Amino acid sequence: MVKIGIIGVGTVGASVVNILKDNADVISARAGVDIVVKSGVVKNLNKDRGLDIKLTDNVDDILNDDEIDIVVELMGGVEEPFEIVKKALRNGKAVVTANKALLAYHRYELQEIAQDIAFEYEASVAGGIPIINALRDGLSANHIESIMGIMNGTSNYMLTEMIQNGVNYDDILKKAQDLGYAEADPTFDVGGYDAAHKLLILASIAYGIDAKPEDILIEGIENISKEDVDFASEFGYAIKLLGIAKKDKNMVELRVHASMISKNEMISKIDGVMNGISVVGDKVGETLYYGPGAGGDATASAVIANIIDIARSGKSRPMLGFDRPMEAGLKLKPIEDIKSKYYLRINVSDKKGVLAKVTKIFEENDISVETMLQRPTSKESANLLISTHTAYERDIQKLINSLEALEFVNFKPVMIRIV
Amino acid sequence: MVKIGIIGVGTVGASVVNILKDNADVISARAGVDIVVKSGVVKNLNKDRGLDIKLTDNVDDILNDDEIDIVVELMGGVEEPFEIVKKALRNGKAVVTANKALLAYHRYELQEIAQDIAFEYEASVAGGIPIINALRDGLSANHIESIMGIMNGTSNYMLTEMIQNGVNYDDILKKAQDLGYAEADPTFDVGGYDAAHKLLILASIAYGIDAKPEDILIEGIENISKEDVDFASEFGYAIKLLGIAKKDKNMVELRVHASMISKNEMISKIDGVMNGISVVGDKVGETLYYGPGAGGDATASAVIANIIDIARSGKSRPMLGFDRPMEAGLKLKPIEDIKSKYYLRINVSDKKGVLAKVTKIFEENDISVETMLQRPTSKESANLLISTHTAYERDIQKLINSLEALEFVNFKPVMIRIV
Repeated sequence: MVKIGIIGVGTVGASVVNILKDNADVISARAGVDIVVKSGVVKNLNKDRGLDIKLTDNVDDILNDDEIDIVVELMGGVEEPFEIVKKALRNGKAVVTANKALLAYHRYELQEIAQDIAFEYEASVAGGIPIINALRDGLSANHIESIMGIMNGTSNYMLTEMIQNGVNYDDILKKAQDLGYAEADPTFDVGGYDAAHKLLILASIAYGIDAKPEDILIEGIENISKEDVDFASEFGYAIKLLGIAKKDKNMVELRVHASMISKNEMISKIDGVMNGISVVGDKVGETLYYGPGAGGDATASAVIANIIDIARSGKSRPMLGFDRPMEAGLKLKPIEDIKSKYYLRINVSDKKGVLAKVTKIFEENDISVETMLQRPTSKESANLLISTHTAYERDIQKLINSLEALEFVNFKPVMIRIV
Repeated sequence: MVKIGIIGVGTVGASVVNILKDNADVISARAGVDIVVKSGVVKNLNKDRGLDIKLTDNVDDILNDDEIDIVVELMGGVEEPFEIVKKALRNGKAVVTANKALLAYHRYELQEIAQDIAFEYEASVAGGIPIINALRDGLSANHIESIMGIMNGTSNYMLTEMIQNGVNYDDILKKAQDLGYAEADPTFDVGGYDAAHKLLILASIAYGIDAKPEDILIEGIENISKEDVDFASEFGYAIKLLGIAKKDKNMVELRVHASMISKNEMISKIDGVMNGISVVGDKVGETLYYGPGAGGDATASAVIANIIDIARSGKSRPMLGFDRPMEAGLKLKPIEDIKSKYYLRINVSDKKGVLAKVTKIFEENDISVETMLQRPTSKESANLLISTHTAYERDIQKLINSLEALEFVNFKPVMIRIV
């Protein structure tokens, strides 16, 4: 029998307890042993959670319990769980976590500490989709050329509604909040930070590259409007918030941003709250993994898969998937060196000579225009909707600054990268 | 260092040799050891394969070589490789195979023999997609409700061309043969047998159910015509050759057949030679796995993933994913008890009273019609294109026989199940 202790018994924790009971038949057949929850740590002991496990508000009751084999960390946060899981590992307990923020900051230190004991984290990326499993084990024969994914269900739900039903950003944000998909402060989801945490975890497995959220390009979907959606539809693109990791010679670029992507790509077909991650390996080609990226039961499904694996095999692989230096020459590409095609929406006062001035600024910044549309937004103003050929991020940022400084440009131009 | 011997050095075997060399850097970092091919067994020693490994035409040179840790079986067939891998396992060698036919017939005997030694087979289903990995490990917390997939790239390529470009069956079969996607005798692919082998493997992992190809419903795509494709498009369906495993109370239905499936389903969006498998778990919901189902390098990617896993961990789980009785009450549902909606194309001589007689036969067989279209095919004949409400397989077969017996029905009605 394997005994587990759960730190943080919220939605996911309760699902872990319930599934271990509901599905005990298949779980014990697959694990080869019975798995039981011995106790859980909560902040508020007075809240009724409807669970028949022992609860405590003292984390040491679990960390120092010799009977507990596996600690499941579901409390969230960064530094506090870091201290707790370190202590658990040092006390000889395997750890399973769903905490992407913890890993976005401390995955290499944890890999170091967990050299001889299992530390698993399938649920930290894309909820119920076994993407860690696929990338670390299933594709292990490959150099990974790229990872590109919809890693945040909230923003994908919002973008899907904007595209399919013409809803505007503020209305759909409110609806997402009403449905419980988005938090009262939605920044973490719509601003791209949640996706960035997940991207960093995947990039470590693929490339062994170390980076923190503050090192990489992170933008959200807050500035996307109906005009952008219409332009995208007209030119055969979907708009998605994508996390992208891409190898380019000895560099790896890591970035999260709203993206226009061809409707022919599988990833563009993933709608609503679902997640999907495409991985291109040098030998296998493209594979794609699709499923629910959040929700108590889906996340718990991944947590328990890790528990079953540990119950059966103990530590069967290094935490990040390698224990010799891997892809050692790869460096993080500076943001300004990233190349892309770009879409720009430039709102201008409708005066004579505006178009000539705008195109001149493109020329001066060495950025060549692929398509241009002009659409009136009122009697006095118009949107210039422009897509460019491939350009450097540094040049596009200079271009945007130059455009913004023009007196007839009404606000900072909105830019969406074309993937 | 881990040494492997390869039995059958054709396209996939050569890819295994080349990838182990090309990608030795990441492979050894992930495996924690170096992996080298010691020798390969081929039938014809005189053929130049451009590989610098030792070749032999005697399989015992590998089976009795004490230095070889892992035997990779890529020879194909059923009984001959079965004898060989049994011998390898008994000689203490781990086995990796891509051979779906071997597993379709002997997986339970192999699980028995390989109790203490690793036997892996990721490449046997859907080539480069790590679906065995996902189903056996990633979704292990779930009762599996259904598996539904495009498991044969050849037939999916043909159907895609028929639907998107209006090509007819015979022309696209010839093109598929010219491109090397289809064999001179294409029955194994277009007749559904290849997909059936893969389905049986997945069903064993999901349900622990034992069945042989001859126990289950297997139909192909040979009778699909442009009329069917047009009907499907008109009513919002794609046509796919699907392998389906579905739990229904204490029964599991297993079937491979051409299917009309709503264009809203992710699986309907998978086109060309690609494979894709949707798995619904009771807790995780739907997850889907997409990628190349064939090709030397993609298949070798899966073979090597297994080799890396074994090199690192030895035997880390039971071959089929469970070693206590699992889902023990589940039985294979008899084919005639399967329920579905159906599409029928009935070619009739265009005479008075035909429609009344046809509808009467539907009524007599207790099958209710959902939609009906009549389309002339010549001056004297017409197609009746009919979709039904849910009915039993046994009733639809009786209906088809009754219809075929009518003198004004010109040939056996074509039936496609609606999923």
